[in-house]
Amino acid sequence: MPIQKLLVANRGEVAARILRTARTQGIATSVLRHANEQPGPAHLIADKIVEIDGPTPVAAYLDIDQIVAAALRVGADAVHPGYGFLAENAAFVRALNAAGITFVGPTEDVIDLMGDKVRARAFVAERGFPVAPAAIEDDDPASFVERARAVGYPLLIKPSAGGGGKGMRVVREDAALEAEIETARREGKRYFGDGRLFVERYIERPRHIEVQVMGDGCGNVVHCWERECSIQRRFQKIIEETPSPALSPEQRTEICETAAGIARAVNYRGAGTVEFIYAPDGAFYFLEMNTRLQVEHPVTEMVTGIDLVAEQLRIAAGGGLSHAQAEIRQTGHAIELRICAEDAFADFRPAIGEVLLVEEPQGAGVRVDSGILEGGKVTTDFDPMLAKLIVHGSDRAGAIARARAAVQGYVILGVTTNTGYLDAILAHPRFLSGDVSTGFLAEEAAVLTARGEDVTDILVAATALSDGRLVRAVDEIPEMHRLMGAWRN
Amino acid sequence: MPIQKLLVANRGEVAARILRTARTQGIATSVLRHANEQPGPAHLIADKIVEIDGPTPVAAYLDIDQIVAAALRVGADAVHPGYGFLAENAAFVRALNAAGITFVGPTEDVIDLMGDKVRARAFVAERGFPVAPAAIEDDDPASFVERARAVGYPLLIKPSAGGGGKGMRVVREDAALEAEIETARREGKRYFGDGRLFVERYIERPRHIEVQVMGDGCGNVVHCWERECSIQRRFQKIIEETPSPALSPEQRTEICETAAGIARAVNYRGAGTVEFIYAPDGAFYFLEMNTRLQVEHPVTEMVTGIDLVAEQLRIAAGGGLSHAQAEIRQTGHAIELRICAEDAFADFRPAIGEVLLVEEPQGAGVRVDSGILEGGKVTTDFDPMLAKLIVHGSDRAGAIARARAAVQGYVILGVTTNTGYLDAILAHPRFLSGDVSTGFLAEEAAVLTARGEDVTDILVAATALSDGRLVRAVDEIPEMHRLMGAWRN
Repeated sequence: MPIQKLLVANRGEVAARILRTARTQGIATSVLRHANEQPGPAHLIADKIVEIDGPTPVAAYLDIDQIVAAALRVGADAVHPGYGFLAENAAFVRALNAAGITFVGPTEDVIDLMGDKVRARAFVAERGFPVAPAAIEDDDPASFVERARAVGYPLLIKPSAGGGGKGMRVVREDAALEAEIETARREGKRYFGDGRLFVERYIERPRHIEVQVMGDGCGNVVHCWERECSIQRRFQKIIEETPSPALSPEQRTEICETAAGIARAVNYRGAGTVEFIYAPDGAFYFLEMNTRLQVEHPVTEMVTGIDLVAEQLRIAAGGGLSHAQAEIRQTGHAIELRICAEDAFADFRPAIGEVLLVEEPQGAGVRVDSGILEGGKVTTDFDPMLAKLIVHGSDRAGAIARARAAVQGYVILGVTTNTGYLDAILAHPRFLSGDVSTGFLAEEAAVLTARGEDVTDILVAATALSDGRLVRAVDEIPEMHRLMGAWRN
Repeated sequence: MPIQKLLVANRGEVAARILRTARTQGIATSVLRHANEQPGPAHLIADKIVEIDGPTPVAAYLDIDQIVAAALRVGADAVHPGYGFLAENAAFVRALNAAGITFVGPTEDVIDLMGDKVRARAFVAERGFPVAPAAIEDDDPASFVERARAVGYPLLIKPSAGGGGKGMRVVREDAALEAEIETARREGKRYFGDGRLFVERYIERPRHIEVQVMGDGCGNVVHCWERECSIQRRFQKIIEETPSPALSPEQRTEICETAAGIARAVNYRGAGTVEFIYAPDGAFYFLEMNTRLQVEHPVTEMVTGIDLVAEQLRIAAGGGLSHAQAEIRQTGHAIELRICAEDAFADFRPAIGEVLLVEEPQGAGVRVDSGILEGGKVTTDFDPMLAKLIVHGSDRAGAIARARAAVQGYVILGVTTNTGYLDAILAHPRFLSGDVSTGFLAEEAAVLTARGEDVTDILVAATALSDGRLVRAVDEIPEMHRLMGAWRN
């Protein structure tokens, strides 16, 4: 049965993005808003706003009881969780289902399985899909050293109870193995009160490549090709693209079919993403599965022409997949840039402020999914991502050229953003040649975060204060051109 | 040799659109501006503004000597004319060439030939391409009645010297032919001082279908498929789409290959459009060839992924075509809506005013090519088209749904626009079924121009005056939702 009323249990650009598609389909819409939260574009698109409350704005968006009650109050027959917050929370799914409301996403069992990284890894490995060689001490403590040796070098020792990189040690030769295991065990006890270990093959210069999949929950699964997400800073993706410049057509087919196979093995329903570590030698290993819409989904939409949110809504309403695998093709090349409120040239210090004036890029092959409004305020209550700029070109060089022109022309006054940093990445020879790994941003940090020449934009110059509010002083634009002639041309 | 410095000899949305592509290619850019003209988006993108003057703004944009001098002054090695103004003026091409400047477009001979509608028709007919049956009195006055009879019924009698529909008479049966010819001759003499006539077959319920072509001037020509442009008001296109819902795959191939053949016959260089009258029985006839970029070119870009301006610049610089015919495919469906400053519900009265606030649609499959800036003024000095909204969907129904959601969310405050009219067209059953001809807007005018319910948008409501200037009162959005809850949902 088609969805009649949808509550989007999210905020920012992704809420607006989901609401746009829902509106296109004639679905009545509601969206959340914390009492202290500045309205954004989503609140202009939705038919209704539902206020939520909590000790912090984020806590409110994580409050299952309150959000289910909100959905019931507006009469929603379905809830789209977006990404983050409750998007991968099985308890939320159970609570919605108990209230007779459809969750736009996979079943709670699949969310539970894929949310447990050790169980997910074991599930995938048992079905013959590639996982990096590993040994888990818990499986059989007596044989752990022998099994660790069999993993092969270089290998990475991690405390089973660890996280955040603490206690992790790289071992490159067998002679050092036993001593390093002992050291790691001591560190594990010290940091986590637990000396049990986990060993996996250490992939040098890895890429992060992920595959978009869609399933109908009735055994039918297709993939929508891959996304290259190796441009990361502290495990946060900054720039994503598709197709990956690293893959040959055969490798592309192999990794995408592997992802579809994994999704088929869990009888996946909805849109999901299978993430892989991709080694320089072409080997790839299952990393995890994200059972939700990804931030970077628009690059897939740009090259395939498929509206992934429309597919999610269709599947949630009991519809089948719209496309057979053979109909899903990659056309051209797409790149996404995450526009964030931060000063990349001052150690990525978070930026806050009032959004005084916005001039978004537009035109052929340019898409902006924005989460801000002129007149709104940016705070540190939420993620610093303000908007996404997505471009499409007929090939990678064309997409990069379009991305550079667009990001250079993206004006946001009142809040410092990372547009200069993004442009520096796009201009870097290693990015241009596609020679990157997940370590690229850290390795090239000195070059990429050097503050460039402060080139004042025409629009930045041609603004004026009106009653304390910055406005476009359109009349001044020609005069600004004259004054700034010295540096233009 | 690649273009180094480009002058865009135009204004408004098309100037901005051309400048964006030039910027993507690293070309230094200049654009014109009349002394009394409000700056627009083009003036934010261009490196330089060149002021031109004249008795009226339009006269300045038609002043060949002044524009060539401007091009020389900024050191431009090429000039892109956009559409309108001097885009199809062979004298302009000759003046630029004499000054050693490249004209981004076809040769002056082709412009001359296709600019003369009678010569163009004869040229096309002689080479065996379809033209509507016709008889020209000048060819042989003595046999004119006999030749007119041979054209077949219904036929249309036009004064050779005429225009604007004056003196035109439809004849449906042979018995009336001679009397109507006499009447038309008298009317021709009265209106134009010239009684010579021209007769052509009158096509009932015609569609306007045109084909995008590109040639390298060295004999190579490709087409980029067709555009359906039957949604016209007083010969002005309002909504264009591709593919045409009227064509079978075989008819599509036939009409597109015919257009490519015509372009090949004149050894066409650059981007051009061959327009056809398409009859309900599937017959089609050459109407004219436009030797320039069309207003509606973005729908072709959306379905083919080709940047037509990039192709124009490449060809003008002596490069070949980027694509073989087999590589140029239509993917999905695209629709363009022309956003105009006029009150469609008050007899299309032109609208003027200050652009107080703009909220453009965005997101998946949405492109806006805008010619206005917040803070700018709309006058009657130029064409009333403010912006173009172009959408893409995986099929026609999806594209229409996206177009409706986008145009309903397109907010321009301060100047009346035709967005409500556009939405009414998109919602009309005949548009939805594709059952239209060039008479559609006139036939359905009563329905389409009935003023709808005045539904105030949230953003419209949530604005405030600040120092005489309308601003987004972001804080007020939730309150407006509360107040307007009565009509939402």
